[in-house]
Amino acid sequence: VGSPKYTSDRMYDVTPPGVIMGLAWTSMGGTSLYIESVLGSVISDDSKPSFHRTGQLGDVMKESSSIAYTFSKAFMAHHFPENKFFDKASVHLHVPEGATPKDGPSAGTTMTTSLLSLALNTPALADVAMTGELTLTGKVLKIGGVKEKTIAAKRSGVSNIIFPASNRADWDELPAYIKEGLTPHFVGWYEEVFKVVFPALEMKK
Amino acid sequence: VGSPKYTSDRMYDVTPPGVIMGLAWTSMGGTSLYIESVLGSVISDDSKPSFHRTGQLGDVMKESSSIAYTFSKAFMAHHFPENKFFDKASVHLHVPEGATPKDGPSAGTTMTTSLLSLALNTPALADVAMTGELTLTGKVLKIGGVKEKTIAAKRSGVSNIIFPASNRADWDELPAYIKEGLTPHFVGWYEEVFKVVFPALEMKK
Amino acid sequence: VGSPKYTSDRMYDVTPPGVIMGLAWTSMGGTSLYIESVLGSVISDDSKPSFHRTGQLGDVMKESSSIAYTFSKAFMAHHFPENKFFDKASVHLHVPEGATPKDGPSAGTTMTTSLLSLALNTPALADVAMTGELTLTGKVLKIGGVKEKTIAAKRSGVSNIIFPASNRADWDELPAYIKEGLTPHFVGWYEEVFKVVFPALEMKK
Repeated sequence: VGSPKYTSDRMYDVTPPGVIMGLAWTSMGGTSLYIESVLGSVISDDSKPSFHRTGQLGDVMKESSSIAYTFSKAFMAHHFPENKFFDKASVHLHVPEGATPKDGPSAGTTMTTSLLSLALNTPALADVAMTGELTLTGKVLKIGGVKEKTIAAKRSGVSNIIFPASNRADWDELPAYIKEGLTPHFVGWYEEVFKVVFPALEMKK
Repeated sequence: VGSPKYTSDRMYDVTPPGVIMGLAWTSMGGTSLYIESVLGSVISDDSKPSFHRTGQLGDVMKESSSIAYTFSKAFMAHHFPENKFFDKASVHLHVPEGATPKDGPSAGTTMTTSLLSLALNTPALADVAMTGELTLTGKVLKIGGVKEKTIAAKRSGVSNIIFPASNRADWDELPAYIKEGLTPHFVGWYEEVFKVVFPALEMKK
Repeated sequence: VGSPKYTSDRMYDVTPPGVIMGLAWTSMGGTSLYIESVLGSVISDDSKPSFHRTGQLGDVMKESSSIAYTFSKAFMAHHFPENKFFDKASVHLHVPEGATPKDGPSAGTTMTTSLLSLALNTPALADVAMTGELTLTGKVLKIGGVKEKTIAAKRSGVSNIIFPASNRADWDELPAYIKEGLTPHFVGWYEEVFKVVFPALEMKK
């Protein structure tokens, strides 16, 4: 309906469980990027949990993925106590494209959502992209490149973007033609991300 | 039949299970290269799985091999659930020639096919070379050097080349004399590679 | 018979099982070098297999030794299935002299032969030196320095040299006075090396 969407950045038409669209930003402009989490080995009775990552991640992003992993385990234990996925799972998280170095903390919410989507075996709502640094307790912190990321999200054909609440002023300053057709969601804590992305899932508490 | 094929790049006449021809590309031109996967030790009841690689692989290619290994395990569990190879196998993947540093993500489909060929103890169809970056979920991503790789494939005497679907335009632009005698296969997902290379094998799903 | 042979490079008069003469090549000329493999610990019922190497080996040569080890295990399992040496043996491979840095892939056939000689407790035929890169499947690849290595072999008093088949043209170009008294053996696969070096041993298949 209406004018065609640009989809050149769109790697997936439908994302399977474990795959979430994030937004990155460089001096060259913004881009969408996917975070993929999959099970590294079939789970058996004597499986040991482990976490492996690839995608030429820099030191900050490696730490960020490690925060996402710790937070995801705590989140599951708290909100889905009957789910024992992380007790046994060998998880492999990858960020295509494999030759492009990536860094920065702003994929925190995306990596966490990717891990939770895998653990819950539930795909994220279609049409959502997100950006936000995460702390170990689930606080979502301000990121850079709101304008570039918004343009990239639009180009990728999504209609919902999840931003840190502390970036609301950056959004408000964007010209209307950039914001047209996009619904922003401003979140202060990870729980709010979860409710946007997995609307059908009921958290225990 | 007809003019002789160049075969100077051809290391194997017939490839055993575990050996697959890939295509690489440098500023000096294209070249074919083999990926070899073999069993590192005889499998016994108490064998533990492991993955070892050699061939002066750079960081991106090491990660790429790790993605290929994770993906191959998931692929086998999904499509050949009765096959328990990766539960026990100590796999060694090598990329000759051993003194030549190699890097980049574009051997993803080749490394995966090498691992699956070993796991299934089935040689690949003769006359196939391939190139393509692989993501953890099996999506095949665009690569560079289509022209150089096509020339290298031809020189190596193969008649089928598997390319990422997103490289179709690069192929279309090649002059007819380069494409002559070659059949390209454009794939968006790894499953399509598998069907070209192992036409006789039936996937469960 | 005739003029005395130079023997300054000759470290062993008779080589025990596990010791094989290779040939190396630098900008300074060629030299013979020995590869020594010995048992690191006495084998007992609960011995675990391991592989340790010394001799200031560079990255490529380390990988090459690792390929030799993997290949040797597969070779024994295939051709001498009743021999369980590698299931229990802690193997130590050393390349004297210990202070000299060494690198490159061309000791592949030599290291493999050293390991097999130890596993089979059989010394190699006297008077043989060899050079050749090995792939994981046993293919022998081209090496450099044929002229320098030939001179070094002669100086060390051997009369047989094993070369990769793909180096035959390099040999053919050598002047007759260098080749005099030497018998070259050109091999495409490791099995052919084995037959030259261990003529009395019967392979199963």
